Amino acid sequence: MPHVTILYTSNLEADADMPALCRRLADTMIAARDEAGQPVFPVGGVRVYAHPSTHHAVADGSSDDHGFVYINLRMARGRSPATQRSVGEALAEATRAHFGPLLARRAFGLTLQVDEGPEVYDAKLGNLHAHFAQRAKKG
Amino acid sequence: MPHVTILYTSNLEADADMPALCRRLADTMIAARDEAGQPVFPVGGVRVYAHPSTHHAVADGSSDDHGFVYINLRMARGRSPATQRSVGEALAEATRAHFGPLLARRAFGLTLQVDEGPEVYDAKLGNLHAHFAQRAKKG
Amino acid sequence: MPHVTILYTSNLEADADMPALCRRLADTMIAARDEAGQPVFPVGGVRVYAHPSTHHAVADGSSDDHGFVYINLRMARGRSPATQRSVGEALAEATRAHFGPLLARRAFGLTLQVDEGPEVYDAKLGNLHAHFAQRAKKG
Repeated sequence: MPHVTILYTSNLEADADMPALCRRLADTMIAARDEAGQPVFPVGGVRVYAHPSTHHAVADGSSDDHGFVYINLRMARGRSPATQRSVGEALAEATRAHFGPLLARRAFGLTLQVDEGPEVYDAKLGNLHAHFAQRAKKG
Repeated sequence: MPHVTILYTSNLEADADMPALCRRLADTMIAARDEAGQPVFPVGGVRVYAHPSTHHAVADGSSDDHGFVYINLRMARGRSPATQRSVGEALAEATRAHFGPLLARRAFGLTLQVDEGPEVYDAKLGNLHAHFAQRAKKG
Repeated sequence: MPHVTILYTSNLEADADMPALCRRLADTMIAARDEAGQPVFPVGGVRVYAHPSTHHAVADGSSDDHGFVYINLRMARGRSPATQRSVGEALAEATRAHFGPLLARRAFGLTLQVDEGPEVYDAKLGNLHAHFAQRAKKG
């Protein structure tokens, strides 16, 4: 963790520039600092996935042009309420900046949520953390 | 929110008529009323996404024809137990009506869950709520 | 339930052998036993879905080759801490065995989590449980 999943209606594919949004959200997480000025998230744990729906329904179906983007950050439990809020606000600001021009010309829902997951077991089995921890040490 | 995600095995694609299920579930949410007769969900917040799996495994693998459909409604915390139950039952009824004929001729799992999410931050950043709120006002 | 969702970056598609991982995780769940030697999960409830992302961002973007695999088991609430841990460890071991060779030559994150979901409503509407319960009875 932190793990961001973006689910969105495929009718936004041409307009949403999802690769840029993924990068922007990842960079926002990497830049996040807690109250002590420490990174909130390790670089090697940051990932963002975007999945367009194959089928969807939005609102009352009155327009096929209506869309939706749902952004969810799941992170481990235990960060302070201040850090939770500042991370949420930073992601919201990045999301607003990305979608501002599109919201001026299309109607779509856009929800961002930050979760502390309900995990009862958690294992990190990859080698990306070690890769970036080593790079940071070499500095 | 409310946010419905349907995950299903791709071997059901030809039979499941997912566009119709998405619409039926969205309409069910729009029609839902609480104990006071008020809408449970705002029209502009209703969306349903359906995502077929690219790879899957079902049960013991004894038949490639076995499938699974998982339907999850995530909604904000705080609705009454009675509303939670009535929303769940309305979605279950809509799901049963949709899949009844297919269940008579194919073997597949079908699970519906309603969650109150574990969010610690939530932001609505889109313009669809405003769009439908304005329409409702114009009446 | 139990319901496993695998989200992964599409740059791992050629190397990850996801069909084999899905089957291996399903078999691991079917083989799981609790402290009393009873099956932890019913065969007809076991399913694994794998969804490659359409777009993604990993870590600081320093290599397009960096990837991520996220494996999530969601199960019903109420199993003992010992069972939660043993299920998690069995899935972790299966995941390690599957990805060991690939981790020796590529850099990617690999996280496994087991959740007890926050459901407030749950309905099983399919016929797969009945199918396997009947088979088990005929034994």
